[in-house]
Amino acid sequence: MIEAVVFDAYGTLFDVNSVIDACEQLYPGKGTFISQTWRQKQLEYTWLRALMNRFVDFEAINRDSLRFSLNKLKLEFSEDTIEKLTAAYLNLTPYPEVVDALNAFQPRQLLILSNGTSKMLHIVVENAGLESYFTAILSVDALKTYKPNPQVYQLAVTKLGISKEKVLFLSSNGWDVAGSKSFGFTVGWINRTGNPIEELGVQPDYQVQDLLELAHLISR
Amino acid sequence: MIEAVVFDAYGTLFDVNSVIDACEQLYPGKGTFISQTWRQKQLEYTWLRALMNRFVDFEAINRDSLRFSLNKLKLEFSEDTIEKLTAAYLNLTPYPEVVDALNAFQPRQLLILSNGTSKMLHIVVENAGLESYFTAILSVDALKTYKPNPQVYQLAVTKLGISKEKVLFLSSNGWDVAGSKSFGFTVGWINRTGNPIEELGVQPDYQVQDLLELAHLISR
Repeated sequence: MIEAVVFDAYGTLFDVNSVIDACEQLYPGKGTFISQTWRQKQLEYTWLRALMNRFVDFEAINRDSLRFSLNKLKLEFSEDTIEKLTAAYLNLTPYPEVVDALNAFQPRQLLILSNGTSKMLHIVVENAGLESYFTAILSVDALKTYKPNPQVYQLAVTKLGISKEKVLFLSSNGWDVAGSKSFGFTVGWINRTGNPIEELGVQPDYQVQDLLELAHLISR
Repeated sequence: MIEAVVFDAYGTLFDVNSVIDACEQLYPGKGTFISQTWRQKQLEYTWLRALMNRFVDFEAINRDSLRFSLNKLKLEFSEDTIEKLTAAYLNLTPYPEVVDALNAFQPRQLLILSNGTSKMLHIVVENAGLESYFTAILSVDALKTYKPNPQVYQLAVTKLGISKEKVLFLSSNGWDVAGSKSFGFTVGWINRTGNPIEELGVQPDYQVQDLLELAHLISR
């Protein structure tokens, strides 16, 4: 029944906490806290910018949210610091099970649908050596809005030309799970950290701990 | 030049941390942490619901975000707990300078523009004995969306029938300051806690520590 699998990128395929090391080098002992504050603010800024109709791309969001976070934590920084730390988003580590899971999901079509810019996404996928797995990497760039705006999820349907329920959308982000399910996809929540479910009025079709577990589930 | 002053409610006129006491009674030692987690999630849910086109009113947002927060903090609760704690939002304490500031802003028209339901707002204003100060209390209810969607700020312009720049919009919430300035109001940021400015591409016209300071500023 599932004909294509669409993956969220940040937090789902790629570990956003890979930036902790880069933060730790510049601010010893504070890497984890910076990374978490930055990620939270990054998400907030995508939601707020989308609602305000004041889009800037994810590279700008990434710099702006880092600037706010360092100010909030009362840490000194230069523009060079901002460039160095945001560059870490181009070298995120895939989660350990990603390659096995991508192999297990084949021969279905595999796509990425992400808030990242087209450029950022292509670089991070290439740096991880995963480019051969994906038939398309879809970015919000052209739409000038962000998830969970339903227009973003529609991008994948338009690209694939198949009905929503035949698309399995996978995300580790609870709010992205709610947004994609509300849109109408078949949805799997990769609940890597044992989070409670978001109370947004929709439930995912699957809840698993990692991508490989889900690949096995739908192959049965 | 300023003909009307429009106030955000939660965090600006009314101290959302007033709910700490109610949380503390049920969960000793955890009141502050619950209150902060709850408030953050409450805001996220307004942004996400608005973007998903899946509106529920602020009473529902308030219950849902509290449920998530208590689950996240691994605290036991019943529906009775949810009712008791959300009821605390009807008895928020106004900040100490509010009455003096409202007097100083007169004889300009004073309004409230809030994410709260009309019912919640009227009760909290009445419980604080402030109802005589306001010519209108505007809620997002009718629009079925949330700040910082520009449609929300337009509510005040439609009600007042004056140009945006003659409206002074006041909020303690940095993201609300950005949204209202992006819309076109004259904006004052009541930066009660010394937060850094949100990096959302717009700057408020005024930045002060409390409402009375701003009332004196524009009266000069």
